[in-house]
Amino acid sequence: MAGEFELIKKKLSGHDHGPGVILGIGDDCALLQPQKGRQLAVTTDTMVEGRHFFAGTRADYLGWRALAVNLSDLAAMGARPVWFLLSLNLPEGSKQWVADFARGLFALADREKIPLIGGNMSAGPLSITITAAGAIKPERAMLRSAARPGDGIYVTGTLGGCGLYVKAGMGEVKLSPELYAQAYKHSFMLPVRTEFARKAARYCRCAIDLSDGLAGDLRHILLQSRAGAEIRLENLPLAPVLQSREAAARLSVQERLDLAVYGGCDYELLLTLPPKLEPRLLQSAKRTHTPVTRIGTILPAERGVHFLYQGRRQPLRPGFEHF
Amino acid sequence: MAGEFELIKKKLSGHDHGPGVILGIGDDCALLQPQKGRQLAVTTDTMVEGRHFFAGTRADYLGWRALAVNLSDLAAMGARPVWFLLSLNLPEGSKQWVADFARGLFALADREKIPLIGGNMSAGPLSITITAAGAIKPERAMLRSAARPGDGIYVTGTLGGCGLYVKAGMGEVKLSPELYAQAYKHSFMLPVRTEFARKAARYCRCAIDLSDGLAGDLRHILLQSRAGAEIRLENLPLAPVLQSREAAARLSVQERLDLAVYGGCDYELLLTLPPKLEPRLLQSAKRTHTPVTRIGTILPAERGVHFLYQGRRQPLRPGFEHF
Repeated sequence: MAGEFELIKKKLSGHDHGPGVILGIGDDCALLQPQKGRQLAVTTDTMVEGRHFFAGTRADYLGWRALAVNLSDLAAMGARPVWFLLSLNLPEGSKQWVADFARGLFALADREKIPLIGGNMSAGPLSITITAAGAIKPERAMLRSAARPGDGIYVTGTLGGCGLYVKAGMGEVKLSPELYAQAYKHSFMLPVRTEFARKAARYCRCAIDLSDGLAGDLRHILLQSRAGAEIRLENLPLAPVLQSREAAARLSVQERLDLAVYGGCDYELLLTLPPKLEPRLLQSAKRTHTPVTRIGTILPAERGVHFLYQGRRQPLRPGFEHF
Repeated sequence: MAGEFELIKKKLSGHDHGPGVILGIGDDCALLQPQKGRQLAVTTDTMVEGRHFFAGTRADYLGWRALAVNLSDLAAMGARPVWFLLSLNLPEGSKQWVADFARGLFALADREKIPLIGGNMSAGPLSITITAAGAIKPERAMLRSAARPGDGIYVTGTLGGCGLYVKAGMGEVKLSPELYAQAYKHSFMLPVRTEFARKAARYCRCAIDLSDGLAGDLRHILLQSRAGAEIRLENLPLAPVLQSREAAARLSVQERLDLAVYGGCDYELLLTLPPKLEPRLLQSAKRTHTPVTRIGTILPAERGVHFLYQGRRQPLRPGFEHF
């Protein structure tokens, strides 16, 4: 076991160099030189087999996604990724698994130029924890508490694709192999919105990443900002897999909207900002090739929360109606 | 489950304030202001049930120890702890467990004045990952690669206590309830050597924390420093539980020494430094009430590695003899 782990460790080392990394893997701690005039944004996320992903999920997909969900948190603050740590609990006999995992992980890490500066490996049921740090100028962080009445509400990318994949994986909907493969890939090979978010952080004060689902994450914003909101469901950018002819045949409009509203795990950004800043937002979106869609408006708290479909109010699921 | 987790989260929040913490728990990331003129030392450690501790281990002990092993890594560099993150995978129905865990965790965190700035909780087999950061002046970090021939080799505290506990837990030795309880507590309520280590880092260039056991961790130092060593086993400071009359009756001298050499999980520090600096080291030890013992000498690489007992060379276990 120890020998296997040594081999595995090699697969995960050698990516620990970069600006600010004084000492990478191999001592009791890594040593970093923080960038002058910058704050540090820090986040951590865990994926447990059977809870956050199905047993047997492709290891390269998991490697990419484990880092992507952390980069998504950094993007939601507007921070530039600077380093990350990896803690892997994995069953014995996982050598090939780790090679595949490392391929997916470093495909993203190397693209984003973020070094893996440390971590550890333990035998145990499969669980992946990544801790990531980003650098950001003071006062520039986008906060959940900064939404103001009148702000437009925007999302990047599309919603509901991961929800469809999970529904299919649970056996609640049957998809063709082609559509299933598309939804599977969509759910793991997540886009990372770093570049767009760093531009947006220059003028936008409020953002969150959509991990729990639109309803749940909007709720975080509204609670912390003490505000209400109106969402126009017909404006939600549905994932391509939900817009497919096959999905339209298998799911009602309501079911597809529900996946976009409650499905979760899309890891897109939700931002709010005053209408006069919308042109800047759309310019940042264009420059970074990031799809951005306005889906609603922040309201004063006393106006409450409304999800409208073609002008008619839609009831919210229990747990989401009280803000 | 979600409801229970909300309650659990409350038990782990409210300790996220301190110098340099701009934003604690509750947004996509925590925000930290790095201290001017300091580097950041970062480490992470995981404890998996059934692998790093026996099922049924007291939760308050685990809380203390999960943080202590990370603080031990920071101490081994000479860094001052500044913040930490916690990722908990735990089975459902763990409310009381978390209350106990939090009590142990914050007993140490509050004493060391280190804020818990974020983390996450997942349902899953019990596993505890902590990531901790410390601040340290440039050039002051104690490295595994900095041992030099002629250096004295020193350890803090005592060795082998945790090894005895593990041996008893595996049923390889039978202890009285009193001695078992003493070894149990000794293995989890670890001392933290931060204050001593920060003083030592002013003049000492080489340290490591003893997690794998004396032989294994000395090996890391010798490999990275390209050096040999001579250890005098009669000088090893044995844990009080190993010095007890009961332990002497149940275990041979050789067995007790083996626990000190290979037992692991003592989380004491091993340091090396030139003999002329020994008085300073002993002064730092005295001022911080830290037991420090000289156990050997660093040799040139070509002299090899010798573990001597009363002048006679002891063979090393397989895996440790080649450096």
